Order: sequence, then structure tokens, then C-alpha cells
Amino acid sequence: MDIPVLADVISARQRVAPYIHRTPVLTSTLVDKIAGCKLFLKCENFQKSGAFKYRGATNAILTLGEEARQRGVITHSSGNHAGALSRAAVSRGVRAMIVMPHNAPAIKRRAVEDYGAEITFCEPTLASREETAAELVATTGGTLVHAYDNFFVIAGQGTAAIELMEDVDNLDILVAPVGGGGLLSGTITAVRGLKPGITVIGAEPAGADDARRSFLLDDLIPSVNPDTIADGLRTSLSERTFSIIKGGADDIVTVSEEMIKDSMLLVWERMKIVIEASSATAIAAVREHPSLFSGKRTGVIITGGNVDLKSLPF
Amino acid sequence: MDIPVLADVISARQRVAPYIHRTPVLTSTLVDKIAGCKLFLKCENFQKSGAFKYRGATNAILTLGEEARQRGVITHSSGNHAGALSRAAVSRGVRAMIVMPHNAPAIKRRAVEDYGAEITFCEPTLASREETAAELVATTGGTLVHAYDNFFVIAGQGTAAIELMEDVDNLDILVAPVGGGGLLSGTITAVRGLKPGITVIGAEPAGADDARRSFLLDDLIPSVNPDTIADGLRTSLSERTFSIIKGGADDIVTVSEEMIKDSMLLVWERMKIVIEASSATAIAAVREHPSLFSGKRTGVIITGGNVDLKSLPF
Repeated sequence: MDIPVLADVISARQRVAPYIHRTPVLTSTLVDKIAGCKLFLKCENFQKSGAFKYRGATNAILTLGEEARQRGVITHSSGNHAGALSRAAVSRGVRAMIVMPHNAPAIKRRAVEDYGAEITFCEPTLASREETAAELVATTGGTLVHAYDNFFVIAGQGTAAIELMEDVDNLDILVAPVGGGGLLSGTITAVRGLKPGITVIGAEPAGADDARRSFLLDDLIPSVNPDTIADGLRTSLSERTFSIIKGGADDIVTVSEEMIKDSMLLVWERMKIVIEASSATAIAAVREHPSLFSGKRTGVIITGGNVDLKSLPF
Repeated sequence: MDIPVLADVISARQRVAPYIHRTPVLTSTLVDKIAGCKLFLKCENFQKSGAFKYRGATNAILTLGEEARQRGVITHSSGNHAGALSRAAVSRGVRAMIVMPHNAPAIKRRAVEDYGAEITFCEPTLASREETAAELVATTGGTLVHAYDNFFVIAGQGTAAIELMEDVDNLDILVAPVGGGGLLSGTITAVRGLKPGITVIGAEPAGADDARRSFLLDDLIPSVNPDTIADGLRTSLSERTFSIIKGGADDIVTVSEEMIKDSMLLVWERMKIVIEASSATAIAAVREHPSLFSGKRTGVIITGGNVDLKSLPF
């Protein structure tokens, strides 16, 4: 099981820099007042494909050998990773094959199609997704690029934290939402290597708290029947991300659905930016755990802005 | 009737700079593809109080004499000018008195109250608003700061265009929405003085096309029963703004409600920023008038981002 170290994140950063946006870090005195600390929002909602996932996907594409490039890449996802991998692959001339449940929302299918990827539909179960992807790998010889259980994807996600630490001095804490753990793992790798004094916190919906329970019990517990509007955070950790998180996170905290929705509304209203529920989970963590964050210089990775604007939770 | 010239906008710029945000200029290759030209969005939705109106209001507050500062400022508005003047005044220690119809949405009342202004309610007619404001002026000795028919307000609004021209070289066209005409007047004053070669276009909803008709007929025609979701653009020009616009605008174009809504959705979805319908009117103008804009380097003033997120038009 390959685990990236700081040097891999730094290599990823040099590799992806020409192809990604260096996203801005936004602040708001009004939101700070409500949050009770000084927030620095690393705005990956402005990243290509609308999410930080473009970093890891781009790193994975750029590290393919020539033969692998010819055969293309495969993943199973109906979320941001599907869109990110599609755009990253197709824009570099690589074929992208996406496995997606047949009941995936039309808006997500269209996004992937618009980027020029090919969709293979499957049943809406993890088993069917994995099986269909494995078949595609067998028949096409393509490379599976998992959404988070992938060395290069994790290293790529860590590049957001590097940029944030370059742009903001003296951060006390850094918060990242945790679903499959790719972003948190990359963040831990970057922070522990560069500025080990910064506290790293994972934020998770209470209705999908498998990472917190795994972290506390020191045993990988899968996500079963997750119940949260933060659709990017319903997945389970992998052995790889779990091993990085248990070794490097300071804590994983959970938040209520109400606070997620209210934090989403807060940021839209006060900062005029569109962030998705998964991102709001990190803001909610700051608001629900004042003992951890009060008065601290807190970096928050805003994971993305891909929201179905015609069906909002508020 | 005092009309500001370039020097007044430049003075305003120096005066307000320490108190306002220098807002970013955002671009999007995806939106450019749909619009058919290269767009540069001057994002006043990120301005304090969520709208460009903070520029004019701040200039008006900073130009008050000491006695006038003591007595406070008065305006009648239920929109962005009310919020902007409230915040600009109270933050400089000046009393703000806002006349607002008793049926104004609760969300707008709260915004003004949160900034620390005092509200006087009136009937929901222009006559009642003006009368109530005049009474307040008579009883308190406060200074009326009209939303657009005001020398310092117009000069202040022109500062957005100055920043945009500094940040983007070789603009061909600049588009600003037109309601009462304060922003368009300030923009014309800045552009005509600094870069007279840039074409200046006003954008107006077809359902509130008093400015276009006034411009074409060379006669000030008031806005009667305006019908548009762009609530910031329902007002009439004043003699002052009309005289600047007829002398300096290259054209005023109208757009459909459908294109306004679609452009609002487009920018939220693709650029992940919250813009209000009035701002979307300028994007709609570019999309509905390709013969004017096709292939051009087009600056657009995004007027604001104050939207009731619980009642969206899409």
C-alpha cells in the first residue's frame, strides 16, 4: 500500500500547476464575527470542474505512462470526481470512461458528457459499480483512477493546503471535510511535512460519522446508510486514507444537518459565493465546536460549488 | 444642476479607497464560450453591503461637512442604496435615517437595521416616500442622499469603472445595467475622461425600458409600471443622470426576462458566484446582442449579490 509523503505532494504541485487554477483565499469580517474566529477560505469552488477533485485527477492523468495514456482512464463515481477526471483526461487527450448508476441525477450525467467522457451505466450499488469498473478495466486495459484510494489522487489533493499555507501566514488550524478521506489525507501530508505545528481537523456530518468512529476506535468502520445532504461525504474511508488519517489528524468532529444548511446559507448570503453542502460542513464544524476554534486563525478548504440550483436545501 | 466630471470621479476614488473593497475582476472560459466574447466581470457583489452602491454612499458620507455629519443622512430606498448608505454612514459615526415602504420585505428591513440605521415607514408610493423623506429633512436637518440623483453618489459609482480599466487592458466595450442611471452616469464620466475609445452600453430589462426610450426619443420618459425581476432597475432616470447618459452612452439595449433569469443561473452555475438579477441583465445584454459584442473584450459591472436565497427565480 503506497502512501504519499510531502515530496509527492510537492511534485504533484509542480506537475499540476500549469493546468489548474490557483484559487483565491477569501475572508469575511461578517462571517468571522458569527464564527468567532478568523477564517481563511481556500475557494476550490472556483477550481476547474468546480471542485478540488480536479487537482488529484489532473495529477493522476499527468503521471500516466504513454501506453496507459493511449488506453484511457476509468472510474466509478456520480459526483465531483467523475466530472474532474473527465475534464482532466479529455483536456489532455486521454479517453475517460465513467461508471455511474443508472439513477444518477440527469445534471451529473450531463456534466460528464459535456466534458467529453463516455458513461457506462450500472446498478446503484457499490458492488455493481466496482464490478462494472473492473469489467471495463479488463476489456479496455484502461487505468482505474479511484476517487480517493489512489496514491496520485491523494498527493494531488494535498496541493490545495500547500497553496493555502503559502498565502496565509501563521495558521493555527486547518479544517477539511472528510468523506473517503482523500482531501484530508493530502492535507495531512502537506501540513505535517511543511508546518507540523498546525492542528488538522476533519469535519464530518453526524449522519455519516464513519471516519470519526474509525478514528476513535482505531478500526476502519465502513459508512452504512449515511444520512446527510452533504452528498460528497457519504463514502467510506479506504485502508490507505484511514492509515494516513489515524496517523496524522488531530481530531475528527461531527456536525448537525441543521448547522450544515445554515452555514451554506450563511456563506452564500454574506460572501456571495456558491459552495456545496460538503464545504459547508467544514464551516459548520467551526461554529459547532467553539472550544476548538475560538479566536484561532483557521484555514478551511471549501471543497466545491457544484450544487443543483433548482433544488436547494433552503 | 451639478454634473460630475472625470476629476470628481478621481477625487472620489482617492477618498473612498481606504473604506471600500477593491473588488476582483473574474473571468470564465466556459461563460465566454456561451457569450461569444471575452468577458471581464467587475465583481461588486463582493463589495461591502453586497453592492456597488457602497461606493457612492461612502463618497457622499465622506464629503459631508462637520455640521452635516452631526445631523445625519436621510434617504428613501428599500434596496441596495438603503443598505449601503446605512453601513457607510454608521461605520463613520453618522446617523442614518431610512424611509422605507411599510410593505418592504422583512429581509431588507433587517439588513438596514443590522447596519444600525433607523427606519421610518411610509406608504408604498413614490409620493409618500419623497414626502416622508422631506419631512425628516425638515425636522432633523439631516442631508438627503438620493440613491442616484446626487453629484457625489454618481462620482462614487464611477470608481468601479476606473478600477476595471486599470485591471484590464484594451477593453472594447463596457456594459452597465441602468435603473436610475447613477452607475451608468458614473461609468460614462470615468470612461469618457480616461479611455474615450471604449464603447459604453447601458443594459435594461425590456419590461422597464424607460431609459432606452428616453435615450432614443431624447426626452426623459419616466418608468411606469415596470415589470421585471431585476428589482434594482425599476426606477426612472433623473434629469441629471439623463443628461449624462444622453451625452455619453453609445447605446442602451434591452433584454428579455427569460435571458435575465438564464444568465443569472449561468453565472451562479459556472462561476460559483451569487449575482442579483440586475447584474444578470448586463450578461443578458451581451448574449442577446451578439452583433454588438461578438469577439469583443467586454467589461461588465456586476452590480451586486443581494438576493433572497429563499425565493429564487429558477
